[in-house]
Amino acid sequence: MVQKFGGTSVADTERMRAVADHVARTQRHGARPVVVVSAMGKETDDLLRAAREVSASPPGREMDMLITAGERKAMALLCMALNEMGVGADSFTGSQAGFVTDSTHTDAKILDVRPDRIRAAIDAGRVPVVGGAQGVSHDNDVTFLGRGGSDTTAVALAHALGAQVCELYTDVSGVFTSDPRLVPDARKMERISFDELLEMTANGCPKPAMRSVEFARTHGVDLHVRSAFTWELGTLVTTTGDSTEEQDMEQAIVSAVTHDIDEAKVTILGVPDRPGIAASLFRALADAAVNVDMIVQNTSADGYTDISFTVPHGELERAAPVCERMATEVGARRVSTDDGIARVSVVGAGMRSHPGVAATVFETMAANDINIEMISTSAIRISCVVRESQVEASVQALHDAFSLADGPTLVD
Amino acid sequence: MVQKFGGTSVADTERMRAVADHVARTQRHGARPVVVVSAMGKETDDLLRAAREVSASPPGREMDMLITAGERKAMALLCMALNEMGVGADSFTGSQAGFVTDSTHTDAKILDVRPDRIRAAIDAGRVPVVGGAQGVSHDNDVTFLGRGGSDTTAVALAHALGAQVCELYTDVSGVFTSDPRLVPDARKMERISFDELLEMTANGCPKPAMRSVEFARTHGVDLHVRSAFTWELGTLVTTTGDSTEEQDMEQAIVSAVTHDIDEAKVTILGVPDRPGIAASLFRALADAAVNVDMIVQNTSADGYTDISFTVPHGELERAAPVCERMATEVGARRVSTDDGIARVSVVGAGMRSHPGVAATVFETMAANDINIEMISTSAIRISCVVRESQVEASVQALHDAFSLADGPTLVD
Repeated sequence: MVQKFGGTSVADTERMRAVADHVARTQRHGARPVVVVSAMGKETDDLLRAAREVSASPPGREMDMLITAGERKAMALLCMALNEMGVGADSFTGSQAGFVTDSTHTDAKILDVRPDRIRAAIDAGRVPVVGGAQGVSHDNDVTFLGRGGSDTTAVALAHALGAQVCELYTDVSGVFTSDPRLVPDARKMERISFDELLEMTANGCPKPAMRSVEFARTHGVDLHVRSAFTWELGTLVTTTGDSTEEQDMEQAIVSAVTHDIDEAKVTILGVPDRPGIAASLFRALADAAVNVDMIVQNTSADGYTDISFTVPHGELERAAPVCERMATEVGARRVSTDDGIARVSVVGAGMRSHPGVAATVFETMAANDINIEMISTSAIRISCVVRESQVEASVQALHDAFSLADGPTLVD
Repeated sequence: MVQKFGGTSVADTERMRAVADHVARTQRHGARPVVVVSAMGKETDDLLRAAREVSASPPGREMDMLITAGERKAMALLCMALNEMGVGADSFTGSQAGFVTDSTHTDAKILDVRPDRIRAAIDAGRVPVVGGAQGVSHDNDVTFLGRGGSDTTAVALAHALGAQVCELYTDVSGVFTSDPRLVPDARKMERISFDELLEMTANGCPKPAMRSVEFARTHGVDLHVRSAFTWELGTLVTTTGDSTEEQDMEQAIVSAVTHDIDEAKVTILGVPDRPGIAASLFRALADAAVNVDMIVQNTSADGYTDISFTVPHGELERAAPVCERMATEVGARRVSTDDGIARVSVVGAGMRSHPGVAATVFETMAANDINIEMISTSAIRISCVVRESQVEASVQALHDAFSLADGPTLVD
């Protein structure tokens, strides 16, 4: 069993001891834990700040050397705490744990995991503690997997070791049907599918790094998102989620209502409806490193169309001039931007074949005088862009409409 | 040329930039610098404190993993600062720099230095920045060379690369004839020999780690102890020290007056004068991990002798019961301990064959009403144990007696 502890879980030496105590308990109960640990608290932020203080554009190789020092400290201290409790534990860097990566510094990709030393430690009855988010390149340089890379380390290691479940410990007790700060009766879900988790947006959801969830889905490693503070059981993330046994496979099931207030909307109005225009627009945005999220193109009426999409707040400034330039190039009418919006999504299984879900969403919004500015759907999600000021009302209304406080809602 | 920067030299990012600027200047002047760097400021102390908070007896392997994280951060940040100034620089861990050590964690010994990557970096016109005090064992584990190990890294690397001089940058501008806090007209020495430096005691002297000086002496690597704050020329440490050219080889030369207040005196009175008694006493003290320094045994008169020695203050508590036990075993009269003492030493070349130096020392002490409690001499040092309250007067008087403010004193 792989247990991964995030930065808040090991923020100080007191927390280190609490985590060590839990790992020791896991071992006493007969499991053979393998631990992955992030840097302590805000250390990674502190290191990034120091880097900015000495350099406007630090070389990636040196960034990786710098940042991975954080995980090394954490893993050594956790091993000390474990040994102090009588649990034999050894720390391993990414390199020692067999994480071979490409040479894309600050955002390296795992090429291979050869956990020979980890297996040997397990066989010797030791608890291996592995530094998260790090590896070694073929040039024998230290590499960093990027922010959130410790989740990926944990999942990849679980896969390489043939572990059935990878526990991701965090500072919330699981994945909720909605943000409990907005919806007081939001319920912790016992199970959710990888696809649903991937569709859930950031706010109020202790979401493991997207990349680690995708890795887990691809390789069939179940995740258990849970708290390193209360230690209660959290949310199990599996291929099938909640739709496992009791339920007719053809039923739709609504799992959660999520929201994201960190988005802005860009609309390009009066775009000539010719093939290739959308492609060139989004290529230009990609070249400017703008992460485009929800894209909606209204049906063309008179040879002209409107294209809307959302981008993270922080990228609006970068996106706007690109859009202005593209609008001029393709002869569009004008560009409008709006950072007062938010996205509210209903997530669940089998929605596309159950129009009743979408209908309920739109009816609920209407009944609460909430105007929907954009709509986008997938097989397991219905997203509406609304005014940011109406997020709380929207989320609570949808949570009520699907009675999520009582359990997953089956829709016939 | 190897340039080593200590913790205070790289205490924060502002200092990092100052150091980078100096390294860049060195390179502009045609030298090919290789940099060795310690952990920033008090980071090593902070890490040791964290270790103590989680464990009463942390495993050595984990201590080394923890502590070496400090140097990794420092070397990455320094490389960033250098690159920012247009100086291509790459960081190297002890392992990457080819430092192969034994497996004595927290105090590893260097077995071999294979600086292939360092040479390749130099040949490519890059500045290599090496993490101090670290290596890798044959088991592929990270090892730490101990406190002050960065000096050893620098000297060993200079030797392996065939560099003529190893610059040790610190927060004082060189080695002085006496502690400037005690003796206002203490003078910075231009040159000193390895032997003299090794005989100098700790207080007020920016002494490189003993081990690194011994390594430098053995392998003929000249040291240059200098300031990373004023960047002025410091003190050159060579085999011959000041006694090089202008001077008759047979003359004695007094270089410095040093002192050490961190010692306590133990005397075992009325020891039967039989062979083997001193041996068993000091074996017992060694077994109790007591570092005995100055040892004086008075001439036996009536079949009984007194044995006195000094130990560090902090070890007196450990030493006393050992001595009591040994005194009983061998039938000695009693044991007395005294932690109100200090050691004052005159250091220089050729003293043994020039009794005039010793005479001047004793006359000076007498003229100043300073009682000498113990005397110990070597070829290049005369040490007197005096009351701690008389250290300042002793040091100033001896510094004046040998006119050290004016330069090294030649004694015919």
